[in-house]
Amino acid sequence: MSNVNIKRLAAELNLSISTVSRALQNSSEIGEKTKARVIALAKELNYQPNHYAAGLRRKQSNTIAVVVPEVADNFFSLVIDGIDQVAQEKGYHVLIFLTRDDYNKEVGFIRHLQSGRVDGVLISVSSESSDNEHLHELNRKSIPVVFFDRVFEDIPTAKITTDDYNAAYKATKHLIEQGCKKIACLAIPETLLISRKRVQGYMDALEDHGLVVDDALVAHFENSNEDVNLEIIDHLIRDKKPDGVFSCIEKLALQTYQICKKQNLNIPNDVKIISFSSLKIAPLLQPALSTVTQPAFELGKSAANILFNALQESKSDLADDHIEMESEIVIRESSINHS
Amino acid sequence: MSNVNIKRLAAELNLSISTVSRALQNSSEIGEKTKARVIALAKELNYQPNHYAAGLRRKQSNTIAVVVPEVADNFFSLVIDGIDQVAQEKGYHVLIFLTRDDYNKEVGFIRHLQSGRVDGVLISVSSESSDNEHLHELNRKSIPVVFFDRVFEDIPTAKITTDDYNAAYKATKHLIEQGCKKIACLAIPETLLISRKRVQGYMDALEDHGLVVDDALVAHFENSNEDVNLEIIDHLIRDKKPDGVFSCIEKLALQTYQICKKQNLNIPNDVKIISFSSLKIAPLLQPALSTVTQPAFELGKSAANILFNALQESKSDLADDHIEMESEIVIRESSINHS
Repeated sequence: MSNVNIKRLAAELNLSISTVSRALQNSSEIGEKTKARVIALAKELNYQPNHYAAGLRRKQSNTIAVVVPEVADNFFSLVIDGIDQVAQEKGYHVLIFLTRDDYNKEVGFIRHLQSGRVDGVLISVSSESSDNEHLHELNRKSIPVVFFDRVFEDIPTAKITTDDYNAAYKATKHLIEQGCKKIACLAIPETLLISRKRVQGYMDALEDHGLVVDDALVAHFENSNEDVNLEIIDHLIRDKKPDGVFSCIEKLALQTYQICKKQNLNIPNDVKIISFSSLKIAPLLQPALSTVTQPAFELGKSAANILFNALQESKSDLADDHIEMESEIVIRESSINHS
Repeated sequence: MSNVNIKRLAAELNLSISTVSRALQNSSEIGEKTKARVIALAKELNYQPNHYAAGLRRKQSNTIAVVVPEVADNFFSLVIDGIDQVAQEKGYHVLIFLTRDDYNKEVGFIRHLQSGRVDGVLISVSSESSDNEHLHELNRKSIPVVFFDRVFEDIPTAKITTDDYNAAYKATKHLIEQGCKKIACLAIPETLLISRKRVQGYMDALEDHGLVVDDALVAHFENSNEDVNLEIIDHLIRDKKPDGVFSCIEKLALQTYQICKKQNLNIPNDVKIISFSSLKIAPLLQPALSTVTQPAFELGKSAANILFNALQESKSDLADDHIEMESEIVIRESSINHS
């Protein structure tokens, strides 16, 4: 079956290509009767406008990109749900791209996007990101960018995160109140602002409650290889014998569960655990996991709304505002003192 | 900052647009010295080729689309991991699109893809899919398609699934061997082939072991609204009092855990559960969940390899082969008879 393009429609209708093109765009220069003929045939032959060419003209793809480190994480999948809900209301397609914390993948994809495939970008930067020139370029290409969760501070655009410092402080304070004296902190790479904020919240809570900060109890995970992470946790728990674990991401908390099982340690009696996590089945774990629950779905919706407002106003430079949303501390079995 | 395009490069170098264009494409018609000048300036000004226009010429985007019902499900996120690994090796970008089991979203997105934004499509169809004309169109537009997991049988292209019938049969047989006499089946919509196969495996296992098939014990979930699903499971467990539950997807098994907790039923003593699931933390649940573990990562890799082989040979019509991969039955606490 041959492709149905404007040329073919024009030939079959005995009209000029430009007339057909303008008729399809509902131009006022074309009579209603002609328009009706063109549209009827386009429908009959199932004509699909060529978006590549249309993109050149309109510079609009009705598509936004969401760039995230991973989707297996419940936080990111909930954020995507929130973004998707707003995009659907606005009639936009959402393309998801995974960086897997690989800086080069992120750069490659952002460069790919610069050619105008999307109208806007929502991004949570990769762990390894250091040089952010690729994001500046996006900015210069007039593609609006909204950062969520993992942000670059020095790019002047909209940013939305949760209250990382406060939530980490509260979670650590909770462990202290449950009697923990030696609390380990499982963190993500220091290159990420959220990591630095969470670790700072943990450290300040320790100091404010008269506990000494021991750098050997703080581990930064590159987050790439699971076996490597398990080994680090295994050693940390065995060598440093913490009585509490504050985990900055869900995955590391679940790996700590595995290691405690392996080392025959009881949670919460031997080790109390609390973690940033959006895991819906946290209450079904053995034992139920205490969590710092971020408003992931709401954060996704807010980030999308900021982007769509900018698109609606044809603004590509977003105000350099930083919105912070509050997380909830949910205490469950894993961090409670029974003695 | 003004856009750097071929026209501007040509003006600054005092060359014709066509010379610059051919130089950038490394044409043999252009001298090496000229090429070097063009490339040096392109680099200096950070020239990005316009992929929209390039796409019209080359008809190649180095991008593939993965269309899935959801990413929060561990099966799909592992499949995506497998696809992504192969795509990365081949130097392709992977765009993920979520249908959320919404047929109209699927149709809209597939139509969007037909304009040549991607070189190939890997798809697991939405639950509500009934008319598959949009997928036939993709086929006709010479965009190769590989189905995985949720397939349309009557579209002649490559399909890759797991052994749904056999795995369901074995899982049900296991529950029978553990003493279950009244086994409920939590299924996805009947419009999906994998659903029909799994339910058939369940029914045949019952019949082969002298148990009566009771339609009231088989529930098909539309999979959209969690509260509705929870209510259906709540009623099913309360009214029909099954002593075993075979779940066709992970989400429904986890919801059954919630309902058993709510109804104060002990798993496995009151109700034994086994479920199709790729949940990595199945062993950490209370109790550890017995699973039909599909080779999700391998399936993703295989599906991607089939697609890339076709792309390499510039074939858009893939052979109508159906590959079936074997799942593993992993028995854990949730389905074991302790009496």
